[in-house]
Amino acid sequence: MDKVCVIGLGSWGSALALTLCKNGYEVHMWTRNESQANEINTTRENSRFLPGVIFPKEIKISTDLESVIKDSKIIVLAVPSQAVRSVVKQIKHVVKEDQILVDVAKGLERETGLRLSQVVKEELPNNEYVTLSGPSHAEEVSRFMPTTLVAASPNLEIAEIVQDAFMNPQLRVYTNPDIIGVELGGALKNIIAFGAGMCDGLGYGDNAKAALMTRGITEMGRLGVAMGAHVTTFTGLSGIGDLIVTCTSMHSRNRRAGILMGEGKSLEETLKEVDMVVEGIVATEVAYKVGKKLNIDLPITNAIYSVLYENAKPEETVRALMTRSKKNEMEEVVNNGFVHN
Amino acid sequence: MDKVCVIGLGSWGSALALTLCKNGYEVHMWTRNESQANEINTTRENSRFLPGVIFPKEIKISTDLESVIKDSKIIVLAVPSQAVRSVVKQIKHVVKEDQILVDVAKGLERETGLRLSQVVKEELPNNEYVTLSGPSHAEEVSRFMPTTLVAASPNLEIAEIVQDAFMNPQLRVYTNPDIIGVELGGALKNIIAFGAGMCDGLGYGDNAKAALMTRGITEMGRLGVAMGAHVTTFTGLSGIGDLIVTCTSMHSRNRRAGILMGEGKSLEETLKEVDMVVEGIVATEVAYKVGKKLNIDLPITNAIYSVLYENAKPEETVRALMTRSKKNEMEEVVNNGFVHN
Repeated sequence: MDKVCVIGLGSWGSALALTLCKNGYEVHMWTRNESQANEINTTRENSRFLPGVIFPKEIKISTDLESVIKDSKIIVLAVPSQAVRSVVKQIKHVVKEDQILVDVAKGLERETGLRLSQVVKEELPNNEYVTLSGPSHAEEVSRFMPTTLVAASPNLEIAEIVQDAFMNPQLRVYTNPDIIGVELGGALKNIIAFGAGMCDGLGYGDNAKAALMTRGITEMGRLGVAMGAHVTTFTGLSGIGDLIVTCTSMHSRNRRAGILMGEGKSLEETLKEVDMVVEGIVATEVAYKVGKKLNIDLPITNAIYSVLYENAKPEETVRALMTRSKKNEMEEVVNNGFVHN
Repeated sequence: MDKVCVIGLGSWGSALALTLCKNGYEVHMWTRNESQANEINTTRENSRFLPGVIFPKEIKISTDLESVIKDSKIIVLAVPSQAVRSVVKQIKHVVKEDQILVDVAKGLERETGLRLSQVVKEELPNNEYVTLSGPSHAEEVSRFMPTTLVAASPNLEIAEIVQDAFMNPQLRVYTNPDIIGVELGGALKNIIAFGAGMCDGLGYGDNAKAALMTRGITEMGRLGVAMGAHVTTFTGLSGIGDLIVTCTSMHSRNRRAGILMGEGKSLEETLKEVDMVVEGIVATEVAYKVGKKLNIDLPITNAIYSVLYENAKPEETVRALMTRSKKNEMEEVVNNGFVHN
C-alpha cells in the first residue's frame, strides 16, 4: 500500500485525504495544531472544517512533519495560498526529490504576483509538481458526490500518476499539460466571482451575472495567454467549471465580499466583515498591474480595481461597462487566440 | 421614426417590444388572439406573460397582420420555435424583400431537425435574417435590468443594424457572423439544461452540475463544428452565457423536465406534468441522430437519450459517464477544433 500525505487539515485537504483513503492509500495528515490532531485522532471528526463527516481510523493525523512526509509518494499541499511559501520552507529539509508535490490551493502570492507552482519551485526546484484544481466544494467531495477535477503538469506522466491516485467512480480526474492556465484559472476566477457578488449586491439579475461570467472568461483567457497560458484551458474545468461553482456558491468569500461592496460598503468595512484574505482582491491587484504593463484590455478587472481603490461607484462602473463601444463577439475572440475551424 | 414590428405577444417578444419602444422606434405587435390584443390596448399590461410591466401607449397591438408588417424596417419573429414555420407561411405574402427578419426563438424544428434560419429561408429565401440570442430572462429585460445579447448574421452590416436597434445602456448587443453557432448554442444548451435538471433531481450537488455544464460546452462545440458552426461561438453569450442562465434558472422548462426524470418519473409522466414542448428533448433527438450519422462522440447527449428512450436509469447513467476511460482535458479540446497560442 503506497503512502501519501496531506499537509494541512482544512476542509479541502480533509476531503482529498478521505478520497485517497477510499482509493486504498495509506494516508497521513499533518497539522501544526496539536489539539486539532488529537480531536480527529480520537473523535474521527474534523468538527471545525468538515462537521458530520467521519474520518476512517486508517487516516493518521500527526504534528510530526518528518514522519508524515517520510516515504510518501505524493505530498498534497493543502494550505491557504498565502501560506504556501512558509509551509514549503518548513517542509523542504525533509522532502526527497522523488516525492511528487500536489498543490491544491488556488491563488497568486500577494507580494510577488507569482503562481503557486513558481513559489514552490523557488523553494523545491527539483521536485515534480502537479496542480489539482477544478469545480469542487470540499463538502461534496467529502461525501463522495460526483465531482470532476483536473491534474495539471507539463510532465503528463506525472499528471497521470496523480490522476490515478485520486480517480474513482465519484471523482473523475482529467489531465492537462497547461499548468499555467490551470493555476491562472483557479486564481483569476476569483476576480469574476467578486464581480458577480457585486452584481448581486446591486440587485441585478441572472442576465447580468451570466454576461459578466461569459465576458469574464474571455477576459481571463486574454490575460492568461499574455501570461503564458493556453487560451483553451479557460474553457475547461479550472476555467468555466470553477467559475460557475464559485459565482453561484453561497459559500465563496470572494462573492460575499463583492456583495458587500455592491451594497455600498467600503473596502475597509468589507474586509473587516469577511475577516479573511479575499483572493479575488489579491488577484485583481495582480491582474491590474499585469494588464497595465503588457497593455492588455481588461475592462472587468479594471472596473473592479476602480471600485476597490479609486472610489468608483459600483453602479456607475456597470453602466460604463455596458456602454462601451459596440463589439463583434467573434472578432474579439479570434483576436485573443481562438482559431475557428 | 422607423417602424418595427413584433410577431407574437409572449414574454420575450413583449420585452423586446418594450426595448425597441424605449429606443425610439414606432413599435407594432401582432397576435392572432383578439382578446389579448384588446387587453393590452386597454389595460397596457400583458397579464399572462409579463404581469406587472406597463406597456407604453405608443406600442400598438393589432390582429391585422398586413398593417402591422407594412413598412416595418425590422420584423421580429417572437413565436415558439415549433410555430415558426406556420407563422412565416402566414406572413410571407405580406413581407417585402427589404424587410429584415429577426428571429428570437431558440430550438430546432422537430420534424426536420433544421435550424430556424433554415426553416425561414425555405419560406422567405430573399430576406436578410438575423438571430438574436443570449442569456436573457424576459422578466429582467422588460424591467431594463442589465443584459447582453448577440445578433448573428453572416452579413455583418445587417447584424449591426439589429445591434443598433436594440442596444441601449441596459442592453448591450454584440454581433457575431456565425449564425449557425449562435442558433445551435441556443438549441443544444437545452440538452445540457435537461441534464442539469436530472443531476438536481438525483440530489447531486454543485460540483456535478458544473462538471456537466463544462463538459457539456465541449460537447456542444464538438457537435456544432460538425454541423458547420465555429467552435468559438460556444464560449460566447449564446453558448456558455445562455447555458449558465438556463441551468441555474428555476423557470427553465428543460431543467424542470430533467428534475422530474431525475426523481424517477417516466418520460410520459414528465411530459404530462410539464405540459408544453420541451425543447431539450427535441434537441436531444436531433443531436443523437446527427451524432450517430457523423460518428461524433457525444457522451452526455447519448446518456440523456438512453434515459429518455431506452429505459436507462439516471443514476447508472451518471456512473457510466464518471467511469469512462481517463482523458486529457486539453487533448480533447485541441482535437475538437480549439488551437492554442
